[in-house]
Amino acid sequence: MASPTIASDKVEGTTVYDTKGGKLGSIDHLVIDKRSGLVRYAALEFGGFLGIGTDRYPIPWPMLRYDTALDGYVVPLDAERLEQAPRYTRDETPEYTDDYGRRVYDHYGVAW
Amino acid sequence: MASPTIASDKVEGTTVYDTKGGKLGSIDHLVIDKRSGLVRYAALEFGGFLGIGTDRYPIPWPMLRYDTALDGYVVPLDAERLEQAPRYTRDETPEYTDDYGRRVYDHYGVAW
Repeated sequence: MASPTIASDKVEGTTVYDTKGGKLGSIDHLVIDKRSGLVRYAALEFGGFLGIGTDRYPIPWPMLRYDTALDGYVVPLDAERLEQAPRYTRDETPEYTDDYGRRVYDHYGVAW
Repeated sequence: MASPTIASDKVEGTTVYDTKGGKLGSIDHLVIDKRSGLVRYAALEFGGFLGIGTDRYPIPWPMLRYDTALDGYVVPLDAERLEQAPRYTRDETPEYTDDYGRRVYDHYGVAW
């Protein structure tokens, strides 16, 4: 059976929408565990001039649902959840630990 | 414990060398299984003007060893092994199946 796959450079730059079709931002890059080859999360950014000064929000990979009509990902996020969400500045990608991963997944209610 | 991670956009474009330090090409993109979030392989390309007309060689993720001195990946490939290696043209990314994945991993003698 064929597995649906996607190229990393197709994910990067893809627009992210909320469930009402409002534009949230775009995927800047994916963070990959070197040993296992697992995508730990997608780093969502909310724009800003050339992405400068904007925070990155780690989003669990399973949350990304591609919508062909919108040509982008739809993620069930609302302002309240985002306000409290884990984030980091562009130049400070956090060390990835199980604790950190769990915190990110827990925040969005995604099974770890 | 922290896991070593890497950003997808740092992998893309990284130069790939053979074990003698000869430049082979570069990583064009990663191919990711949508369901599991696992990187299936890195697509190696061998240059050519803007990458046009060159084949892509799927390389098992565990084969990529980063060499800080070279600032690139060192992959134990030789001409003979590459001549027989699975490849596809730029515009024909193959469907990813277990059979295909196994063929790629087997070719390079990497455990599936």
